[in-house]
Amino acid sequence: MKEIQSSKNELIKATKKLQQKKYRQQTQTYLLEGFHLIQEAVKAKVVLREIFISQRGLKEWSDWIEEYLTDYYLVSDEVLKALTTQPTPQGMIAVAEMPKEQSEAFAGAWLLLDHVQDPGNVGTMIRTADAAGFAGVVLGQGSADLYNEKTLRSTQGSLYHLSVKSGDLLEIVPMMQQAGKKVFGTALDKAAKEYLAVERLSDFALIMGNEGQGMTSELLTLTDQNLYIPIKGQAESLNVGIAAGILMFHLLE
Amino acid sequence: MKEIQSSKNELIKATKKLQQKKYRQQTQTYLLEGFHLIQEAVKAKVVLREIFISQRGLKEWSDWIEEYLTDYYLVSDEVLKALTTQPTPQGMIAVAEMPKEQSEAFAGAWLLLDHVQDPGNVGTMIRTADAAGFAGVVLGQGSADLYNEKTLRSTQGSLYHLSVKSGDLLEIVPMMQQAGKKVFGTALDKAAKEYLAVERLSDFALIMGNEGQGMTSELLTLTDQNLYIPIKGQAESLNVGIAAGILMFHLLE
Repeated sequence: MKEIQSSKNELIKATKKLQQKKYRQQTQTYLLEGFHLIQEAVKAKVVLREIFISQRGLKEWSDWIEEYLTDYYLVSDEVLKALTTQPTPQGMIAVAEMPKEQSEAFAGAWLLLDHVQDPGNVGTMIRTADAAGFAGVVLGQGSADLYNEKTLRSTQGSLYHLSVKSGDLLEIVPMMQQAGKKVFGTALDKAAKEYLAVERLSDFALIMGNEGQGMTSELLTLTDQNLYIPIKGQAESLNVGIAAGILMFHLLE
Repeated sequence: MKEIQSSKNELIKATKKLQQKKYRQQTQTYLLEGFHLIQEAVKAKVVLREIFISQRGLKEWSDWIEEYLTDYYLVSDEVLKALTTQPTPQGMIAVAEMPKEQSEAFAGAWLLLDHVQDPGNVGTMIRTADAAGFAGVVLGQGSADLYNEKTLRSTQGSLYHLSVKSGDLLEIVPMMQQAGKKVFGTALDKAAKEYLAVERLSDFALIMGNEGQGMTSELLTLTDQNLYIPIKGQAESLNVGIAAGILMFHLLE
């Protein structure tokens, strides 16, 4: 255990840069904020390069710290505030390594995100995919960054429970289809098939599109079937996370 | 059309106070921000006491303004910024009157919120209830304020498409049951009934509880049946808005 009192410390200044995507990609590391997320990361054997804990955090989670951590920095509240993007920082922040090499296997049910821009939506959809029993999520082009603080927080740790990849959906969808997987798109109009008419299945992919625009038209033509959720009231649409939840829980066997 | 240039104008100072719940309740009015929400309010014949429009808003929505507005204030960007809580203010803000007298009728399907605290969750659930064909939503004790800026924004205008009331669920639930309505609670444990085992119906109420704690125990004992959504992965729970979406779309005939 070492102590850092000042937010002008070189390690703290370097760590703070991880709030920006550019530095996360350069270093292949990201900030993980709050006890619950860090606990989930440790459970999932994610490598944590540094862990910063405040005096109060040290008291609150002393048993867990003693059992699971071999080394950490005890930091002042000022340091913690410098590292967080949250108005009320939690007592623990870690620097975690991104996973290496992703396998090309896509067994089971997969959720594919096509330009889903809001970090909260992306995080919540990863959490819901986990709860629904999906094998993984692919973040397609234009989707929010997985390692954005808000995305991470909204996953509630589910990013460690299933496979989360990034990739070009225009390449991945045909690859999945060649491997025999059925790929469903989602459309906002009634030219598509009503989701309730689809039988439950176990090996498929479901694509959700952008909050305002829906799926890109090129991708819509690649799918095996496009689905829609009938709107009964006067609402113009559903929140994309809610729509994904309804479809995932309905479709997966 | 009158002009206001300074955010120190008395009307602007008084209007800005409506960002606080206390003043909204005193005056029974609230701020409505952005063209889409104001358009929905006008469609629903909500009384708008004042409308503030920026130069840019005036250009962008000139046809609509000419058709629907008889009077408004042309304001500077400084004034608009003073009235908004948003980082990038939209070009139109109105002061709307809250509805008077609420009827006691509860026909059809109703969503009841028990201490749902997050304004974004409450707003999204109102929007989803609208899309699912529900007749109304009751905001029980401890739930976020309907007229909070974030709640309003998340409804996307759906508050004008169905009935939204506030009330004590410990009184409303027995009243609904006496009128023959079936009331479902939601529980986080498997002692409750799996939602897929419930037949679709048209006259019922569904209660959703607090984000962290779920429903209050007193209310859980009042219901006719408590439901749960089976979690297949390792996620500990679903976001309350997602859970509500899955249940509403499954239950309503």
